[in-house]
Amino acid sequence: MNNEVMNSENVMQVDLDFGKLDGLLAVVIQDAMTQRVLMVGFMNAEAYARTLETGFVVFFSRSRNKLWMKGETSGHKLQVVSMSTDCDRDALLISVKTAGPGVCHEGFESCFSRTRVNNNWIVSDPQTFSPTDVYSDTKEVVK
Amino acid sequence: MNNEVMNSENVMQVDLDFGKLDGLLAVVIQDAMTQRVLMVGFMNAEAYARTLETGFVVFFSRSRNKLWMKGETSGHKLQVVSMSTDCDRDALLISVKTAGPGVCHEGFESCFSRTRVNNNWIVSDPQTFSPTDVYSDTKEVVK
Repeated sequence: MNNEVMNSENVMQVDLDFGKLDGLLAVVIQDAMTQRVLMVGFMNAEAYARTLETGFVVFFSRSRNKLWMKGETSGHKLQVVSMSTDCDRDALLISVKTAGPGVCHEGFESCFSRTRVNNNWIVSDPQTFSPTDVYSDTKEVVK
Repeated sequence: MNNEVMNSENVMQVDLDFGKLDGLLAVVIQDAMTQRVLMVGFMNAEAYARTLETGFVVFFSRSRNKLWMKGETSGHKLQVVSMSTDCDRDALLISVKTAGPGVCHEGFESCFSRTRVNNNWIVSDPQTFSPTDVYSDTKEVVK
């Protein structure tokens, strides 16, 4: 347990480890109601701080090289319900309350909408909203 | 939907995108029975192929720079139940049947055993096995 100090109440001062992935943490988003895994994103230290500050999930977009509050375009924000880190402190699991019918910019409840069946990837989900209606001019980039 | 070809049966020929993370995919492991997220690991193309071939989760260990079948030391292998990819094809969600009381090398059911409470990280889980008994001489490296 490097860089951890534990007291008698199991409270640890843990520094998250942003070093293993070039300044980023892998972040798993799970629906607090259904337990479904909705997406994986990445946070740098600033995105993590903004998430704590606002109570809503803020990612770092690798493709746009900037912070990105999930749902800023679609309105489908992700409210933090609880947050865990792992034994290596280089990943986060965030349980969220969703504010819309789906998180995926292609109109699905979950970004994980393609299931492997007989060596193919099958679109296994129904669309829950129309991405063209929701994103109109500006397409929200997922990562 | 770049690099995807969809036919009338929603079958897509999808190439997973190993390019966005230096040859790796982020892989979320979820317990098929409980829906609990157990861990996050990484796969390169070879680890992915070995996972498909064996039916058990094989990661690429970044710290050891080699393939690593999860549970090869502890016996706590992860049998693939189903597998999904996301809209960017750069992450996997694998639903697994577990073969032991926990996946974490620190003796917990899930690697995500630290929950954020009042600005601290609290060990929120009980240990489900003794890591010193399970790993004896060789410590299985988690990532």
